[in-house]
Amino acid sequence: MTTFDYILESRKLQEATMLQQESKTVPEFTRSDPRISELLELTHEIADLSAVSSLAEWDQNTAMPAGATEVRSHQMAALQGILHDRWTAPRLGELVNELREEVQKSPFSDADRGLVREALRAYEQSTKLPRKLIAEIAQVQAGSFTAWRQAREQSDFARFAPWLGRTVALQREVADRLGYSETRYDALLDQYEPSMTTRKLDALFVPVRETSKNLLQCIEASGNAVDASCLEGDFAESQQLVLCERLLKGMGYDFSRGEVARSPHPFTTSFGSPFDVRLTVRTDTHFLPTSIMAAIHEGGHAVYEQGSSPELVRTPVVGGASMGMHESQSRLWENAIGRSEAYWQGQYGAVQEIFPQQFAKVDVSTFARALNKVQPSLIRVEADEVTYNLHIIVRFEIEKALINSDISVESLPALWNAKYREYIGVEPANDAEGVLQDIHWTSGFGYFPTYTLGNLYAAQIFAKLGSVFPDFDAQLASGDTGFVLNWLREHMYAFGVIYEPEELMKRLTGETPNPQYFARYLTGKFEKIYNLPGEK
Amino acid sequence: MTTFDYILESRKLQEATMLQQESKTVPEFTRSDPRISELLELTHEIADLSAVSSLAEWDQNTAMPAGATEVRSHQMAALQGILHDRWTAPRLGELVNELREEVQKSPFSDADRGLVREALRAYEQSTKLPRKLIAEIAQVQAGSFTAWRQAREQSDFARFAPWLGRTVALQREVADRLGYSETRYDALLDQYEPSMTTRKLDALFVPVRETSKNLLQCIEASGNAVDASCLEGDFAESQQLVLCERLLKGMGYDFSRGEVARSPHPFTTSFGSPFDVRLTVRTDTHFLPTSIMAAIHEGGHAVYEQGSSPELVRTPVVGGASMGMHESQSRLWENAIGRSEAYWQGQYGAVQEIFPQQFAKVDVSTFARALNKVQPSLIRVEADEVTYNLHIIVRFEIEKALINSDISVESLPALWNAKYREYIGVEPANDAEGVLQDIHWTSGFGYFPTYTLGNLYAAQIFAKLGSVFPDFDAQLASGDTGFVLNWLREHMYAFGVIYEPEELMKRLTGETPNPQYFARYLTGKFEKIYNLPGEK
Repeated sequence: MTTFDYILESRKLQEATMLQQESKTVPEFTRSDPRISELLELTHEIADLSAVSSLAEWDQNTAMPAGATEVRSHQMAALQGILHDRWTAPRLGELVNELREEVQKSPFSDADRGLVREALRAYEQSTKLPRKLIAEIAQVQAGSFTAWRQAREQSDFARFAPWLGRTVALQREVADRLGYSETRYDALLDQYEPSMTTRKLDALFVPVRETSKNLLQCIEASGNAVDASCLEGDFAESQQLVLCERLLKGMGYDFSRGEVARSPHPFTTSFGSPFDVRLTVRTDTHFLPTSIMAAIHEGGHAVYEQGSSPELVRTPVVGGASMGMHESQSRLWENAIGRSEAYWQGQYGAVQEIFPQQFAKVDVSTFARALNKVQPSLIRVEADEVTYNLHIIVRFEIEKALINSDISVESLPALWNAKYREYIGVEPANDAEGVLQDIHWTSGFGYFPTYTLGNLYAAQIFAKLGSVFPDFDAQLASGDTGFVLNWLREHMYAFGVIYEPEELMKRLTGETPNPQYFARYLTGKFEKIYNLPGEK
Repeated sequence: MTTFDYILESRKLQEATMLQQESKTVPEFTRSDPRISELLELTHEIADLSAVSSLAEWDQNTAMPAGATEVRSHQMAALQGILHDRWTAPRLGELVNELREEVQKSPFSDADRGLVREALRAYEQSTKLPRKLIAEIAQVQAGSFTAWRQAREQSDFARFAPWLGRTVALQREVADRLGYSETRYDALLDQYEPSMTTRKLDALFVPVRETSKNLLQCIEASGNAVDASCLEGDFAESQQLVLCERLLKGMGYDFSRGEVARSPHPFTTSFGSPFDVRLTVRTDTHFLPTSIMAAIHEGGHAVYEQGSSPELVRTPVVGGASMGMHESQSRLWENAIGRSEAYWQGQYGAVQEIFPQQFAKVDVSTFARALNKVQPSLIRVEADEVTYNLHIIVRFEIEKALINSDISVESLPALWNAKYREYIGVEPANDAEGVLQDIHWTSGFGYFPTYTLGNLYAAQIFAKLGSVFPDFDAQLASGDTGFVLNWLREHMYAFGVIYEPEELMKRLTGETPNPQYFARYLTGKFEKIYNLPGEK
């Protein structure tokens, strides 16, 4: 360690300690101020109605009978209409515009500032989008979902295409009304990741793309292989669900404030964080990781939501700071933690206990190594960490082009297949395993890039965890992951949406988003797994 | 057959034919009238929001984690508040008051008349109840539900008592605001069974009470017994659910417009009849009828809701004509049909197939007979047909007294136990199997009597079915119950709430509610089963 390194290290430690002290207490709302108190009252009702709307969506994806599609679309439209009314209420507009400057000063807290900022954002977005448009979007979304489900079952893109066309047209209108300075797609992006633009994304994504491609080439060139055959076999569905529950409990997911169900595409949702946060998994009776890695991934989202301070309940600042920040937590738990040998040293006992026949003779290193097999594939949600972001880049490019009117809906299957061949070297045999695989395009565009953003954020936060806990792997291997959850709760989860993503990253890691952390994480990890000659 | 009988019979047949022709077509709304069309628009939104509120209740009873109790109570209160705003909207009031007389004339249809009548009823009830009261009721209901669930688990009435006290106080206030001419309890009764009063109920219930008591005495005096031991044993939960599904499919319950879940107290609910109607069952691994008779009972409610004409969707005239009429269908399917030997001649194959060990050596007569064992017991939902209404009378008397301020909440357990001893000859060992057994008092009062009303209506409708289908039992025994469902759909279900209970009974059976049908049904059935000397 050089003197410079030492100074740097000490400074990092100092900062870490400061942050730790600083962030121990979640700021409270200044309820004594009548305007803050009135704003809270207004946003409480909005949060309650949004929760019910999320419940209807959860039901739609987990239990609703097919015959209810049309009535449900009316129900969603009715709720969206009322939420729109509430977000555009003149009194709300007065309050947030009156407070927007004043709240920056004393005695207002960071919680107040977050509240006013988020309420203002929603007010402005909502006033730009007429209620009729919102209602139409909700109706089309419900119809589109059913069409997608049927199209996917029958691998028949033509069945979904007209619905996708309607969604594209509506989302273009949304973008035009919201406004943008460079490309129409920016307006949609900003909805999920505040202040994000295509230009910024391109800059962040280039190193990711280069790293992924180089690494994939090195791995393929090395001729080294990972044997993942232990993950295939016969795994009873009910036992997989038992294992998922065990792993979720181990992560600290609180079942008294949640529930696990099944759906074709796993997701996490909340009906009043931190008190009701539910997730879904899906199972593959022949491939264990489908369920357990989905459980850990969704569990990451869920512990983030469950970690919000109760001070923030029923406000727009409860929950995840952005879609990218949310994804950072699912990725952190799923990949950085959940695919590490240290994690499985602590959890593998459950796997062997629940599937003794399959794993009695498989050691933990073989199991953990198998979870990291790099295998160019067709299905995003089952992709390894090296190729994952290439799946996202396919979608990102197609979305941009669709929204900016460069391509037609009809051209999607061919375009999709060509991009998969070009970037990942594989080509779907049918649309079910190709362009129809994701639920996302039943509702809108601009969401996919947040997955790769999540990977970048996750790597940066993971590096921070490594510096805070020098014996990270040893602690993880003990089987108790509580130290990770506690640190994340205290420094990140508890604060909900009080800080914007960029500021939150600075507070957490000492710097703004930097793609080099991901490049280093990915290269370091897979050089070791595939025994590649190190680049340094 | 005397000449007089013959004339009477011919007239009945003539009437039946007329009714059949008359009622084949469900009247349509006069959408060409701009006021009807505007009223439909307003009530569509209300129906959509009510559906979402029912969904939240369903979730609360089937899946919601305990930690969500408080946030959910806010969510329910927010929805109830908005529904209240919608039902008291001045424009709605103008429309219904303008139409109330005019709609009686040509060219308006029975559907229009039903729509205006039901909208007016809701408008008037809502304008009498301030929004703040409604919100408070919703909040107390959610808290009360959780307290009841915990109290029941621990058999600890004291845990539930304060919540019950709050519900009593709120319901008294509701009654006072709604108004009544005789007793306060009448106002609550009227909410579930339009135009019903305590006085009318007493007149209808006296013959029921007398018949039940006499019959019970005769049965006990006869010394004859029914052996129901075949219904006890080990019945795997998952297999019970398979059997429930088979029976529900057999009844014509449409799973593409519904779903079956489990809850401690079975119920049926709708989120947009006839397109999304769901039910719950509960299972007892040692006693088969708990699940299957609940399935047939709830199935009766569900096929009624699913039978509404699609013309009526998203309006206040879709669904069941009243709580009593609703209960008549669950009782008709559960008891008159579902406990008859003829029914089981057609369905018993499924029972033997799914539980071969238990029923291979039990013949269908023994099985059907066992389902009709008369056994004074503690639990209403498992009571036989002879004692069932005595369970209701206990509750009816206690409710009346609670609401009319004659007794205190604290006195309930003792009073309950005393009445059980007096009327049914049994006494609960603890409150879980006594005063805490029903969910109903977590929300309000006035509902219980509709169960006995349902039994009266059911017997009258069953008599009608017997006259329409002279070979009723033979058709039932064939295994295809479609003829019953089709007739009920065509003459009753399709019409939803277009007609009030009394008129609907007249249209269906040719006369207003008459308790003698039930007396005859009950006596005839159990004289046969218990081989009693006939009274005539």
